Amino acid sequence: MSRTDLYPSRQSTEAKFLERHDPVIHSTWSKDAPLTREQHDSYDANGFLFLEGLLSEDEVASLEAESSRLRSPGAALDKETVFTELGSGDVRSIFRIHAQSELFLRLAADPRLADVARYILGEEVYLHQSRLNYKPGFRGKEFYWHSDFETWHVEDGMPRMRALSMSVLLTDNSPHNGPLMLVPGSHKRYLTCIGETPEDHYKDSLRKQEVGVPDEEGLARLVEEGGLVAPTGRAGSVVIFDCNTMHGSASNITPMPRSNAFFVFNAMSNRLEAPFGPAKPRPDFVATREKIEPLRRAPARSLAAAA
Amino acid sequence: MSRTDLYPSRQSTEAKFLERHDPVIHSTWSKDAPLTREQHDSYDANGFLFLEGLLSEDEVASLEAESSRLRSPGAALDKETVFTELGSGDVRSIFRIHAQSELFLRLAADPRLADVARYILGEEVYLHQSRLNYKPGFRGKEFYWHSDFETWHVEDGMPRMRALSMSVLLTDNSPHNGPLMLVPGSHKRYLTCIGETPEDHYKDSLRKQEVGVPDEEGLARLVEEGGLVAPTGRAGSVVIFDCNTMHGSASNITPMPRSNAFFVFNAMSNRLEAPFGPAKPRPDFVATREKIEPLRRAPARSLAAAA
Repeated sequence: MSRTDLYPSRQSTEAKFLERHDPVIHSTWSKDAPLTREQHDSYDANGFLFLEGLLSEDEVASLEAESSRLRSPGAALDKETVFTELGSGDVRSIFRIHAQSELFLRLAADPRLADVARYILGEEVYLHQSRLNYKPGFRGKEFYWHSDFETWHVEDGMPRMRALSMSVLLTDNSPHNGPLMLVPGSHKRYLTCIGETPEDHYKDSLRKQEVGVPDEEGLARLVEEGGLVAPTGRAGSVVIFDCNTMHGSASNITPMPRSNAFFVFNAMSNRLEAPFGPAKPRPDFVATREKIEPLRRAPARSLAAAA
Repeated sequence: MSRTDLYPSRQSTEAKFLERHDPVIHSTWSKDAPLTREQHDSYDANGFLFLEGLLSEDEVASLEAESSRLRSPGAALDKETVFTELGSGDVRSIFRIHAQSELFLRLAADPRLADVARYILGEEVYLHQSRLNYKPGFRGKEFYWHSDFETWHVEDGMPRMRALSMSVLLTDNSPHNGPLMLVPGSHKRYLTCIGETPEDHYKDSLRKQEVGVPDEEGLARLVEEGGLVAPTGRAGSVVIFDCNTMHGSASNITPMPRSNAFFVFNAMSNRLEAPFGPAKPRPDFVATREKIEPLRRAPARSLAAAA
C-alpha cells in the first residue's frame, strides 16, 4: 500500500531532473486579478516576482519595531522557535511569528500579500511556515542553494507543488549584504537530491544546509539556462517565489544587517501528509500540520503603528 | 634604541583612527601621466580605480591558460607558495607567480600596469607580493575586511604607505560571485587593530583572517562615511587600490569561479625593515625582503599567446 511519490528525492546516489506535474499559477488571468498580466506572465516564466516598495515607510517602521521587540531577550517566545547564529549566538530566525505576533499575522493576512497567494495557488491558503529572519552585519552566514519544496516534500510530506513563499524586506537589500539570489526558470523542473536524511535533520539544517541541497552539476545547468537574479531594493519590498525555485544567499560581511519576514502560503488542498522521506515529521513550528484553517480574509488596512 | 612607529597597531585593547602621514599619489599630474586627470583625482579621493577592459580577450585567454596550467597537479611550483581551500582542498592561492611564471612577470611589468604603479608611487617599484587567486564556485569562502598595509606594516615591517595593489580579473566579476568590495575614502585614515599577532600567523591568516581585522565600530563608521563599492566587469579589467584601502569579499555560492592575478607594487624607498609587531618576519614568498631590484621596464607588447 505504498503512496505514489511524484517527486522522489534523496533515494539515489545520482541527481536527476524530473518533470514538474503541477501548474505554477493555478488561476486564469483576468483584469480582476491582483497581479497585472505582465506580473502573472513573469511569475509563471521565472518562478518569482519582485514587488518593489509594496509597504510604506511607516509600515516598515512599525514592523521593524515589532521585530526588535521579538528579538530582544524579554520577548515571551516559544523557546524552540528561536534559532541563533553559529558562533556569535545572535538570533538568526524566529519561527511561527504569525502565532506569536498579532502584527505579523496582520502582515501575512494583508490582502496585498494574501490575495496574491490565493490567486497564484487558486484557492484558500494557510501558513505552512512563518519566520522572522535576521542576518546580522559583519558575520552573516551564507545559505546554500536549495528548492524549498524538495525539503517540504521529503521531510514534511507536502504532496504537490502548490505553495509559495513571500519575503518581506525589513531592511534595504543591496547587492552587497547577502541578498536572496534566485535562479529564474529553475521552478519548472524538479532536481532530485542525493543522500539520505539524518534523523532530526531540521535542528542543523535550519542553521546550515548540508543534506537536501542540489548537486553542483545540476545547479550549474540551471544557472547556465536561467542566469541569476538578486532582487535589491528598499525595505518594504516583497519577493514572491514558487516553492520549487532554486535560491540561496551569500555571506554578509558588510555592517548592514539583512532582515525579512518570511511567509509560506500553502493551498488548503495541499496540506501535509506523512513525510515521503524519514518516518518522523518535523515539528509543527517548522511545518504546520495541526489545526489547519484558512488564513482569515482581512480588509485592506495600514500596518503602520498610528493607523 | 626604538624606532619611531608611525602606524602602531595590535598594541592596545582599543581600536583608534590615526592620521595618515603619507600622500596617496606621489606624483603631480601632467598630461604625460599614465592616468587621466579624472582617474588621478578619483584614485586620490577614493583610494581605488577600476580600469575596465584594460586587457584584450586574447590576452585574458592566454593568462587563463597559464593559470590553469599553474593550478594543475603537474605544475612545478614551490610547495610553500600553494594554499588550498579549507574543506575542499581546492587550490585557493599561488604566491610569487612573478617568479614562477614568465607570463605573469610580463603581466606585472607591462607598462599598462607598471607605469601606473610608478606614477602613483612616484619612483621605481618592485613586487612586494604576487599571487594567483582562485575562488572556486559553489563554496568560495569569504575574506573579511582588512587594510593590507596594517598587516604589511606589523608583520612585514613595511615602514610607510607607499604601496598599492592591482587585481587583474581573470574571470568576469558579477555582483553575485563574491567580488572584491572596497570602502571609498577609507585609505585616508589608519584604523588600528586590537589584539596581538600569534607566531607564524600567516599560515592561517592567508586562509581565514582573524587577527589584524578592524573592529566593527570602526568599520561601520568608515562605511557610513564612504559607502561600499564592488567593481564588476568582464575579465581583463583591473582594480588598483591603495595599500590602506579597507576591502573584503563575501562568499561565493554561485557556480561561477572568481579568479584574479594579484600584484603588490612597493616603492623602492619603502622596502621592508624589521616587523613592527612580532620579531620573526613572514617568509619571502609572502613579503619580498631578499634581492630587491626595480621591476624591469618592459616595452608595450601584447600578452596574447599568438603575439
